[in-house]
Amino acid sequence: MISHPLDAILHPESVAVAGASPQGRGGGFISPMLDLGYKGKIYPVNPKYQEILGLKSYPSVRDIPGPVDYVISSIPATAALQLVDDCAVKGVKAIHFFTARFSETGRADAADLEKEILRRCKAANIRIIGPNCMGVIYPDWGLSFFGGLPKKSGKIGIASQSGGAIGDILDVMRNKGLYPSKAISYGNALDFNEADYLEYFGEDPETNIILMYVEGVRDGRRFFNTMREVTKKKPVIVLKGGRGKSGTRATASHTASLAGSMTVWNAAIKQAGGINALDIDEMGDVAAAFNFLPPIYNNRVGVCGGSGGSSVMGADLSEEAGLDVIPLPEEIREELKAKGSPIWDWISNPADFSIGMGGEFNIAEVLALMAKNKNFDLLINFMMNPYARNGFRPAGVPNTDAKTANPGNAAATPPVAPPKPPPGPWGNIPATIDEFLKPYRHEVIKKPLIIIHSERGRNDTTGDGNKAYLEMRDKLVENGIACYPNIARAANAAVRLIHFYREQQARLAD
Amino acid sequence: MISHPLDAILHPESVAVAGASPQGRGGGFISPMLDLGYKGKIYPVNPKYQEILGLKSYPSVRDIPGPVDYVISSIPATAALQLVDDCAVKGVKAIHFFTARFSETGRADAADLEKEILRRCKAANIRIIGPNCMGVIYPDWGLSFFGGLPKKSGKIGIASQSGGAIGDILDVMRNKGLYPSKAISYGNALDFNEADYLEYFGEDPETNIILMYVEGVRDGRRFFNTMREVTKKKPVIVLKGGRGKSGTRATASHTASLAGSMTVWNAAIKQAGGINALDIDEMGDVAAAFNFLPPIYNNRVGVCGGSGGSSVMGADLSEEAGLDVIPLPEEIREELKAKGSPIWDWISNPADFSIGMGGEFNIAEVLALMAKNKNFDLLINFMMNPYARNGFRPAGVPNTDAKTANPGNAAATPPVAPPKPPPGPWGNIPATIDEFLKPYRHEVIKKPLIIIHSERGRNDTTGDGNKAYLEMRDKLVENGIACYPNIARAANAAVRLIHFYREQQARLAD
Repeated sequence: MISHPLDAILHPESVAVAGASPQGRGGGFISPMLDLGYKGKIYPVNPKYQEILGLKSYPSVRDIPGPVDYVISSIPATAALQLVDDCAVKGVKAIHFFTARFSETGRADAADLEKEILRRCKAANIRIIGPNCMGVIYPDWGLSFFGGLPKKSGKIGIASQSGGAIGDILDVMRNKGLYPSKAISYGNALDFNEADYLEYFGEDPETNIILMYVEGVRDGRRFFNTMREVTKKKPVIVLKGGRGKSGTRATASHTASLAGSMTVWNAAIKQAGGINALDIDEMGDVAAAFNFLPPIYNNRVGVCGGSGGSSVMGADLSEEAGLDVIPLPEEIREELKAKGSPIWDWISNPADFSIGMGGEFNIAEVLALMAKNKNFDLLINFMMNPYARNGFRPAGVPNTDAKTANPGNAAATPPVAPPKPPPGPWGNIPATIDEFLKPYRHEVIKKPLIIIHSERGRNDTTGDGNKAYLEMRDKLVENGIACYPNIARAANAAVRLIHFYREQQARLAD
Repeated sequence: MISHPLDAILHPESVAVAGASPQGRGGGFISPMLDLGYKGKIYPVNPKYQEILGLKSYPSVRDIPGPVDYVISSIPATAALQLVDDCAVKGVKAIHFFTARFSETGRADAADLEKEILRRCKAANIRIIGPNCMGVIYPDWGLSFFGGLPKKSGKIGIASQSGGAIGDILDVMRNKGLYPSKAISYGNALDFNEADYLEYFGEDPETNIILMYVEGVRDGRRFFNTMREVTKKKPVIVLKGGRGKSGTRATASHTASLAGSMTVWNAAIKQAGGINALDIDEMGDVAAAFNFLPPIYNNRVGVCGGSGGSSVMGADLSEEAGLDVIPLPEEIREELKAKGSPIWDWISNPADFSIGMGGEFNIAEVLALMAKNKNFDLLINFMMNPYARNGFRPAGVPNTDAKTANPGNAAATPPVAPPKPPPGPWGNIPATIDEFLKPYRHEVIKKPLIIIHSERGRNDTTGDGNKAYLEMRDKLVENGIACYPNIARAANAAVRLIHFYREQQARLAD
């Protein structure tokens, strides 16, 4: 436990849900907690019911027998002041207002009601999460507002003005093997604001990487000062909502936020060492880089295992993202020559998988040579779904049928049979990936590696390609590999990571 | 049939495959043709076999009894000259050289061999596709180099220096309901080059949209002159391989191409009315826009049915892509007011689906009002996978449980049970989409509509989310809807389309 005021609030021994109902939405706050095995007391509050989801229901918060730490308000806005008064009597520490329709409606009376809630809560020493928000997900403490979440927790702290955005962020993260420490949706930020959540995650020992979706800042100076301190220890990835004039209009009706100038915002983020993301996919991409890769300070990349066209495009896209796709170092060519490869002078960086399909080299060997070479800071390797329409053998898998093939045709991709469980090494995907990663892991563990795990092949209607895709993903994630669907996204994430560590190093040296 | 020399070559009555083998790669060229029901004669050529895939095999092309229109060379480069001589004797019209290891190796002897092949083919009046390429896919004529391709054909012509890129393009296209008229991989472009393929697709009545992956141009002047003519009738989307210095190195070893300056390239594409794409996903996105949307000449967009956060981000990303997310026209607010909506003054553009979850309006009604309003040129509507982690009800689906819910909490997303076949309207995905599209289709058919069909929810390991994703995709495609996984990609594709038609209009008016 740490001393930040949010820490006590996020570890409640008892939770009441005002407005709970068996089928309705209030009940929804209870079942996710039951799902996650919340160990404290749960008190449904609704005068219409005796019992909700097997738990005794109380007519009001005042009627609950024991102490109540945390209240989730799932009642209409018109009843909110009464709830605050009840909570004051009961000595409640914090209220999460799922309740909405306050200042975000743009109406004066609703905004006044919001102010009065804040006034009464302050007087009663009650802290507020929200209003107009989904609240808290904290798998290790059994708190959630979504059902069906994995119980698994990770090292990523999320603070977001939008609960829907948290749903999208968690979905994107899960597909990359990333899990949250805590995720907090904070809506209108009436009491705790963006600076508080950032400060908290900065101190939180359960959080290593911080993601924020912010529509407007309540206290810009404190937010950026806090960010400048936090980024000395942890990366902070910020997605700004309300960047243009239409988005700014939308933030007002969503969370009553004033969006502000993007020129000022970008300068402030840069100065504070934060990382801007433009959408949720980019946020997830950058988070995966920080989660799986070590600090990297230079940008010389080796690219391995695409076919001819994807090698060319991979080189272009890597370079456009800001990586340096250096020529293949002479010593690697010499090593290939010494090993007897007849195409030693033709292999380049990117190393085109298809030119070796005559059996003259194995792409995994080239990757291992790159990994041992001091000129590379980072490696990117393609690994195709065996169901991909073009039927490529995944890079690094031994070309077992090379001898039966026509050696003269090795430079292009072989036509293949209709997609079906492929024979040979890909009969068992996890075993194949283990085999592929084995030499790399044992010999050259220290070179950062990204795998391009393409979505190609997962769209067939049989579902087999998707199954293979997910099987590959799970196996790669289990091995702690950062995966990206294409090289543009991989290169962008890597560049953002490298930039962060370089800037951090410079700032710490000052 | 048209008079372009490629047209006769692409309609062969007989095909010989030199280097065919039962298990090997040559055989692969035969089985895809058998799959697609090629109606002409197929002659395997390989002295080692009597029969391949049930077809009589011949020792050489000379030994084939009947006439041979088209030969696929799947033999080593060292045997290529002999094959050319045999084809000359036989009166063959065209050879597709899958055979590789010519100038792309960077070796002088291999480059000389390539030149000699061209010289002998010219002397014998034999045209060449390739060398170092996968050749031709033409579903309606039974030609293919990939197995397991859908027999379905469409209106998209593809010419690509890389066969692997064609595999990727077809996979991306298929996921959007797009199919090829013909796809031609042309590798080193020894005889027919980029200008020939472009000219051909420009004339081809089976092709409406042209996609090209080009690493280097053999005849830049003719290519861009041809493009300027073709784009008066059809959009030409070009993905340039070899844009940076590392990509340029890679084009040399892939297809022996000289990549050239991107400044010159971009200026020439612009002047010729072509559309640049940076990667295959963008190429597919833009192709889908042209395939499903009518010409659009202005950029005022109405966005409907995201939640709060995704409405804000949707507005930002649309604006950043170049669309104009105009404020909701006053007359729509008046109509909502007249219909008795208590939140008529709060609804905006984007129309935030979540604020109507108290049951005060149905997002499909708002969409219909936008569709009837002359201020919008284009509409974008979100439709969530019911298995998406955040459990949103898809936009436009009636909120059947609104009455049992807590009306005061309507501004945020309801917590939901763990993902499982959702009750209510989403029990039957195709029926739900039909229901959603019905009023739109009948009342306001003329307003272009894009649907954001998010990937969220398809990554659960049960496969149910993926199944729902594919079911939604198929149903949307069947209805002729352009689908995108996120609004940034949708907006970009729409902007490219609008720009193309505006430029085309201006050029035709000159």
